[in-house]
Amino acid sequence: MFICEGFAAQGPDKSFTPFSFERRDPLANDVDIDIQYCGVCHSDLHTARGDWPGTLYPCVPGHEIVGTVRRVGSAVTRFKAGDKVGVGCMVNSCQTCESCKQGLEQFCEKGMTGTYNSPDPETGPDRHTFGGYSKRVVVNENFVLRIPDNLDLAAAAPLLCAGITTYSPLRHWKAGPGKKVGVAGLGGLGHMAVKIARAMGAEVTMITTSASKQADAERLGAHHVILARDPEAMKKAAGTLDLIIDTVAAQHDIGNYLQLVKVDGTVVQVGAPEKPLPVNVFDLIMGRRSLAGSLIGGIAETQEMLDFCAKHNITADIEMINAQEIDHAYERMLKSDVKYRFVIDMASF
Amino acid sequence: MFICEGFAAQGPDKSFTPFSFERRDPLANDVDIDIQYCGVCHSDLHTARGDWPGTLYPCVPGHEIVGTVRRVGSAVTRFKAGDKVGVGCMVNSCQTCESCKQGLEQFCEKGMTGTYNSPDPETGPDRHTFGGYSKRVVVNENFVLRIPDNLDLAAAAPLLCAGITTYSPLRHWKAGPGKKVGVAGLGGLGHMAVKIARAMGAEVTMITTSASKQADAERLGAHHVILARDPEAMKKAAGTLDLIIDTVAAQHDIGNYLQLVKVDGTVVQVGAPEKPLPVNVFDLIMGRRSLAGSLIGGIAETQEMLDFCAKHNITADIEMINAQEIDHAYERMLKSDVKYRFVIDMASF
Repeated sequence: MFICEGFAAQGPDKSFTPFSFERRDPLANDVDIDIQYCGVCHSDLHTARGDWPGTLYPCVPGHEIVGTVRRVGSAVTRFKAGDKVGVGCMVNSCQTCESCKQGLEQFCEKGMTGTYNSPDPETGPDRHTFGGYSKRVVVNENFVLRIPDNLDLAAAAPLLCAGITTYSPLRHWKAGPGKKVGVAGLGGLGHMAVKIARAMGAEVTMITTSASKQADAERLGAHHVILARDPEAMKKAAGTLDLIIDTVAAQHDIGNYLQLVKVDGTVVQVGAPEKPLPVNVFDLIMGRRSLAGSLIGGIAETQEMLDFCAKHNITADIEMINAQEIDHAYERMLKSDVKYRFVIDMASF
Repeated sequence: MFICEGFAAQGPDKSFTPFSFERRDPLANDVDIDIQYCGVCHSDLHTARGDWPGTLYPCVPGHEIVGTVRRVGSAVTRFKAGDKVGVGCMVNSCQTCESCKQGLEQFCEKGMTGTYNSPDPETGPDRHTFGGYSKRVVVNENFVLRIPDNLDLAAAAPLLCAGITTYSPLRHWKAGPGKKVGVAGLGGLGHMAVKIARAMGAEVTMITTSASKQADAERLGAHHVILARDPEAMKKAAGTLDLIIDTVAAQHDIGNYLQLVKVDGTVVQVGAPEKPLPVNVFDLIMGRRSLAGSLIGGIAETQEMLDFCAKHNITADIEMINAQEIDHAYERMLKSDVKYRFVIDMASF
């Protein structure tokens, strides 16, 4: 065991404060990573503030982790000290079930181990995992990603969650040349979806409620922008898209988006509204449309995404903050006042 | 024009009474059919009683039509007097749009012409179509189906709606050997789904709220029966099915069904609840699941379904009624008191 420094929320209404805790020394298959940057995901906020049930305090969030390998366990062959690496939303899974064997560790039948707020089988069920708002992390090598050299390390951090969350459904539902892809919501997820869908060769339409975001959507790569509050524009676009990646986590009228997709089109939820969304079944039946969901991506696919982003020189648009500014950053996120991802500079500790 | 006799509802609260109306003489591409039997679909009831907006009165429902060709238009080559034929939910479409070219006339971009309650382009926009609760019907040959000789004509009538409504999603979502298919709801649609899914080679699970239906579900071909109100049974079956055909038209908790499907599984709505169904997005995200909808099927696929049913000797389980008994049949349908489809004997006029 060694003592690791981090920032934790001690309760749903508590500010983030410095927190020292034990991490395990690397087991044979573990990689010990000096964290340099950690992205700030909306899930961090929901978990830390107890918006979702089941938060285990003290809570050290953070699952968009990049850094440098400090040391490796005796059996590790794929990484060595000095390598630039990343860790996303998972740090373990059973690796033997049908989902794991298919490379869908996020759907592990025994439950994957989340990077934070999960019971940790490695250290006993009475302990839970602590995430990347900290100086170091120790992770099984099968859940460590290689960060390509040409990517800016800080701006690559959000790829580990926002990147794979949008890349995976774009691949699964076959975004590419000849396909018309909509992206609903221009935030951390949405801005990644636009960049990646564009790089895949799709014709990209940003669907946003904010006229002020039009220029930025185009800068990020959107060919078209539709204002969701303009009934004429929405009507004109009805039935024109093959796929929509819906990143909107607030309550919204999903029928508006379903009507934008063609026969056999799909709207994929990657944001997760807290309350159920009312779905008019006629919106599905008329056009054999699907409403689907997608959760991050498997480990192999995450590496594929990083390599794809390296090839196309894609990273997130970020704003760097110090660790002392997490609470303030959360307040700004609640006002959508970030373009488009906060990243904590761990050197600020 | 000729005078056709039928039964119509003159308003949402009115009983069915005899009704004489004009039908067009066959145009060059039309087939004039003596109707022998017409199935009674739940949509008939909803339309006749004004449950859905837009009913045009007098309303002559009926879109599960079988009969014998009386005469054909001068350009008709595929049918001749004496042929056994059927007509389903559509009697026309633009035949030139992308959907029609793909054989998905039900999604015609200009709107298909329904067998009843549709403005009729053939006779002018001020007239609407009258369905199969009548002695004859005149239909463009492209929307006339051939009924295979070995099928009982009366029991084949429900194939034209209930049959294709379940066959099409089973085919589209690849029911077959090695696939585990659930069917939710054992009514007119559900009993066809069980028979067809079984004939396709799938492992079939009936999901019903009625313990009393277990034996019948097995008789129809279900390998397993799950009682939807048994939390233990539902929990045990969680994540085991590839596909569910959800025929339940009443309000219901769709999350219960979504949790039954595997990673990448799909729940397909073919029933249409009047009010939106609340969907918990986590049920979609956890397992990359889809909630989809499906509407009847195209004309070529409907013929494929009839030929499939002929090969596997599949028809509906029916109860024959006289035309004077329609109102009474509707009352029994509202109590689910029919196994599993009423069919009107037109000889009873």
